[in-house]
Amino acid sequence: MPIKLNSTDADFEARFAEMLSAKREDSADVGDTVSAIIADVRARGDEALCELTAKFDGMELSPEGLRFSPEEIAEQVAKVSTEDRAALQLAAERIRAYHARQIPDDASWTDPDGATLGWRWTAVGAAGLYVPGGQAAYPSSVLMNAIPARVAGVERLVITVPTPRGVVNPLVLLAAQLSGVDEVYRIGGAQAIAALAYGTNTIRPVDKITGPGNAYVAAAKRQVFGKVGIDMIAGPSEVLIIAEGEQNPDWLALDLLAQAEHDADAQSILITTDEMLAHAVAGAVDRILPTLPRAEIAGASWRDYGTIIVVRDLDEAAALSNRIAPEHLELCVDDPEALALKCRDAGAIFLGAHTPEAVGDYVSGPNHVLPTARSARFSSGLSVLDFLKRTTMAKLSPGALAAIGPAAVRLAGAEGLQAHGASVQARLSVLNERGAG
Amino acid sequence: MPIKLNSTDADFEARFAEMLSAKREDSADVGDTVSAIIADVRARGDEALCELTAKFDGMELSPEGLRFSPEEIAEQVAKVSTEDRAALQLAAERIRAYHARQIPDDASWTDPDGATLGWRWTAVGAAGLYVPGGQAAYPSSVLMNAIPARVAGVERLVITVPTPRGVVNPLVLLAAQLSGVDEVYRIGGAQAIAALAYGTNTIRPVDKITGPGNAYVAAAKRQVFGKVGIDMIAGPSEVLIIAEGEQNPDWLALDLLAQAEHDADAQSILITTDEMLAHAVAGAVDRILPTLPRAEIAGASWRDYGTIIVVRDLDEAAALSNRIAPEHLELCVDDPEALALKCRDAGAIFLGAHTPEAVGDYVSGPNHVLPTARSARFSSGLSVLDFLKRTTMAKLSPGALAAIGPAAVRLAGAEGLQAHGASVQARLSVLNERGAG
Repeated sequence: MPIKLNSTDADFEARFAEMLSAKREDSADVGDTVSAIIADVRARGDEALCELTAKFDGMELSPEGLRFSPEEIAEQVAKVSTEDRAALQLAAERIRAYHARQIPDDASWTDPDGATLGWRWTAVGAAGLYVPGGQAAYPSSVLMNAIPARVAGVERLVITVPTPRGVVNPLVLLAAQLSGVDEVYRIGGAQAIAALAYGTNTIRPVDKITGPGNAYVAAAKRQVFGKVGIDMIAGPSEVLIIAEGEQNPDWLALDLLAQAEHDADAQSILITTDEMLAHAVAGAVDRILPTLPRAEIAGASWRDYGTIIVVRDLDEAAALSNRIAPEHLELCVDDPEALALKCRDAGAIFLGAHTPEAVGDYVSGPNHVLPTARSARFSSGLSVLDFLKRTTMAKLSPGALAAIGPAAVRLAGAEGLQAHGASVQARLSVLNERGAG
Repeated sequence: MPIKLNSTDADFEARFAEMLSAKREDSADVGDTVSAIIADVRARGDEALCELTAKFDGMELSPEGLRFSPEEIAEQVAKVSTEDRAALQLAAERIRAYHARQIPDDASWTDPDGATLGWRWTAVGAAGLYVPGGQAAYPSSVLMNAIPARVAGVERLVITVPTPRGVVNPLVLLAAQLSGVDEVYRIGGAQAIAALAYGTNTIRPVDKITGPGNAYVAAAKRQVFGKVGIDMIAGPSEVLIIAEGEQNPDWLALDLLAQAEHDADAQSILITTDEMLAHAVAGAVDRILPTLPRAEIAGASWRDYGTIIVVRDLDEAAALSNRIAPEHLELCVDDPEALALKCRDAGAIFLGAHTPEAVGDYVSGPNHVLPTARSARFSSGLSVLDFLKRTTMAKLSPGALAAIGPAAVRLAGAEGLQAHGASVQARLSVLNERGAG
């Protein structure tokens, strides 16, 4: 039974707070195992990689066999149907077009004191994308990670994707090809993250690692953070739908179930001003759920974390939304733009009844890698900016140094940093002599 | 003795690689102690805060006394000299002017298929800035952290600054006032980070924590990451100066020493095309070093990590710079703009002989919180963006869904996510009926 709340209930605040703080993830403590794997790959390189791949993926590989050859990729990609290829191409084009608009501008200006200031964006040199293998290999995730990197101008783009017992997903390789990936290695787990961060004879290290993975991959990313950059560690996914009365209950039920089918830890929440709609959606979920191939997963998620909340008005809905800070927020209301302005914290907003969250997972264009577990309060989805870094620039004319240097000397003195002050004062003294000369 | 290298030496590559991989930080493992402190503050709130503050800072406080009152702040701020106040005001104005240009634009457009796409930036709701106490309390760091948050539009801005045995730095409180900080608490250490992340009766929790601190503060920030956002964990600071022949050796020596005086783990590197200049700078360092109040710290840094490298030309200098990926890069050459284009990885670049790094620490305008330990390869200095998050927006017209929805259905099928496909297909079916009707 999903949680059903009404904001007029006496115990509403307590029950909403309880729902909000429920821990959905059982994070296995695999830190020590992962540390050992990373140390092994650092010490023994390809040899360790091959052994670990034999052990965990049931694949006997030589160092030369770690990388997919162009022929192997072509052979796999040829298996993709024309329809699947066309769909993936459409997705790639739309994702590319959206992300191309995210490229930020450099800036340079000279202020009245004569200081030329600004910044410059440059791409990360090399990026590595982790792609889970087997059943959880999602070609859409390849596009969502690789295309922003390519748009940013990353020179070298590497994918690792395990092929447990030899299982290769042709769509993943096609997605890599469409995204312009340079190298694809058939490794996974913490050993793949270690190889990307520290390099081996076969695999050169990268500067940034992104992409989803299991508990071992997540722990490995945490451990190599600092040596390389990483994206956010994703938690279980969630959707919040805010709906008014005149909505199609089946559509909303399917949107809730689309979230629930990801993972038993996923969470689907409906907030509505209309108690009749709440009942109708709950009924539709019960009717549709058994028909789904992934009914077991979706059923567990809906039973344990599914929530329907009836509220007085949309202002109340927006206030609750901001406390939830959902990864995905669907606004199925008459004026979604107005409501969106009140919903401050969300990873992605889907406006109106014809924008189901699932189109955002594949083809609308924005990234589907989004902040989970209330982190939309302080972080953003994956973007071109994740593959760029900004260098600040400053050039002072002698006049500018004369104008603002004395304040630096003063503050350096106040902070007890004499050499800081002296490095400025030495220049000011020469300028003063010249001025006096 | 600093390291002296010449790129023509037979063992240059080995010795440069050794210098690059030298571990400068001895990171004490304080994780368990910090976990216990965080758990204590979560469990007992203000009571734990007061006990820990008595224990670690020698300050007996009641919960009501944790926060500086407006009268206490006014009393402290009145102690600041007119000259110091003017210098701090100039710095604040220049930092504000620089960061105001970093506010990114929202975007919204409608593509040919009828999909309205874009994104929206909003400020983090509440930010907490950690300021170290006692000797290491730097008012400039308050400005560098608080002003970008305020420029971003953060509604609630909190500072924690420990006051060990009652020592308060009036300039820190003035910097907080000039930056528009809302609340200042006299707490520090892991307990301050725990209070900011989880809240107590007295201190409401924040969404993002930034600012430098000791090993306990850094470990606490790592542990609360996820619950709140954090900035990068800073390592020891470094400067790289690239210089041609016609430079003033004393100026360069002072710039190297300004870096070295921060911390015995700091690193100062000079790369020059001119062997004579290398000798002159080395001599100037030896001459000036004993005159510094912080000679012991600067001397240790210069002895253990100071490096002078003579290279054939500026291209070689730029290539080495990119391998170092320095936090601060000074280009004291005839054409610094041309050289800057070749130096891809650096936190901040200072162009020309009249832009000593120390002006960047205080008054030039760009942020002085910058990526250390080679992380400029993949990350950027603190900016307004660190206090904003981006929400992606999508609204499909019925026509847009009809155009791109089938590709989403196809890909959902390929990924085995039936409910995803069905949520799109249900809408497409209704549209088709309408179209056929």
